[in-house]
Amino acid sequence: MDWMHETIKQLPKGAFLMVKGNPMTIGWAQFGIIWGKKTFTVYVRESRYTHLLLADAGTFTVSVPEYGTMSEALAFCGTRSGRDVDKMRALSAGLFANRFGGQDGFAGCRYHIECRILFRQDLNEDRIEDKTLVDRYYADGDTHTMYVGEILGVTEEPE
Amino acid sequence: MDWMHETIKQLPKGAFLMVKGNPMTIGWAQFGIIWGKKTFTVYVRESRYTHLLLADAGTFTVSVPEYGTMSEALAFCGTRSGRDVDKMRALSAGLFANRFGGQDGFAGCRYHIECRILFRQDLNEDRIEDKTLVDRYYADGDTHTMYVGEILGVTEEPE
Repeated sequence: MDWMHETIKQLPKGAFLMVKGNPMTIGWAQFGIIWGKKTFTVYVRESRYTHLLLADAGTFTVSVPEYGTMSEALAFCGTRSGRDVDKMRALSAGLFANRFGGQDGFAGCRYHIECRILFRQDLNEDRIEDKTLVDRYYADGDTHTMYVGEILGVTEEPE
Repeated sequence: MDWMHETIKQLPKGAFLMVKGNPMTIGWAQFGIIWGKKTFTVYVRESRYTHLLLADAGTFTVSVPEYGTMSEALAFCGTRSGRDVDKMRALSAGLFANRFGGQDGFAGCRYHIECRILFRQDLNEDRIEDKTLVDRYYADGDTHTMYVGEILGVTEEPE
């Protein structure tokens, strides 16, 4: 289960949330157990192209780079929208074929965490108790939707 | 960060959610990073005494037993309500004094994860996409509230 430590360590530098071949850079996630299932949860703002892609997707995959690597691709995917550019093509990047029926991952990452969406709900920012977080993250009202995924499987990509 | 592996391993057997000296047995949790903070999230049904205690609490602590131990105490705290009985007294159990301003833990556990509540929101069971989960967990309409805590600190109890 080393992917847990690696994911927590790498997340502040970014990981790729993959939906329909489009990578979005994420820095937040949670994982654990809910409804008796191993879960991985991601958070996507309503304004994002990935939010639109998830609207009719039943799965997502999180691809976690080896710690400290792929920083240029993470920066690119965190600042450009899939509405305007085919990010994988622009990066000359390849897909890592899914093995558990989830989405294809971002090739070259260390771990690919394939998930089936169990639950999705908007976070109500009025319920945030630390108001400095509201000011910092929701000044423009761009809410996060939470997607709880059941972990279908985790693949460690061969080096 | 071994507490993560130990928590995931032990959770199906149970851990103690501590609020105001009252232990509730939990089998679900998630942890990770949200709003740039290390977080630990717990889920408590509206009917529970712990839900009432959390209503005017700003913190919680999760005490994780050594794998496979304390099964009697976990069973007791998972079937009795703090409304009816002082569980710690009934178990002749002691509190592990908090070190980071969170709640006191359940003495004798391996890890004590102290958290400050950042966010609380009811899970809307209508948004669960796997309807077998709705039948299994919400037939009586007893909703879960999600409490996202910032991890203030994790203490490994000396043996």
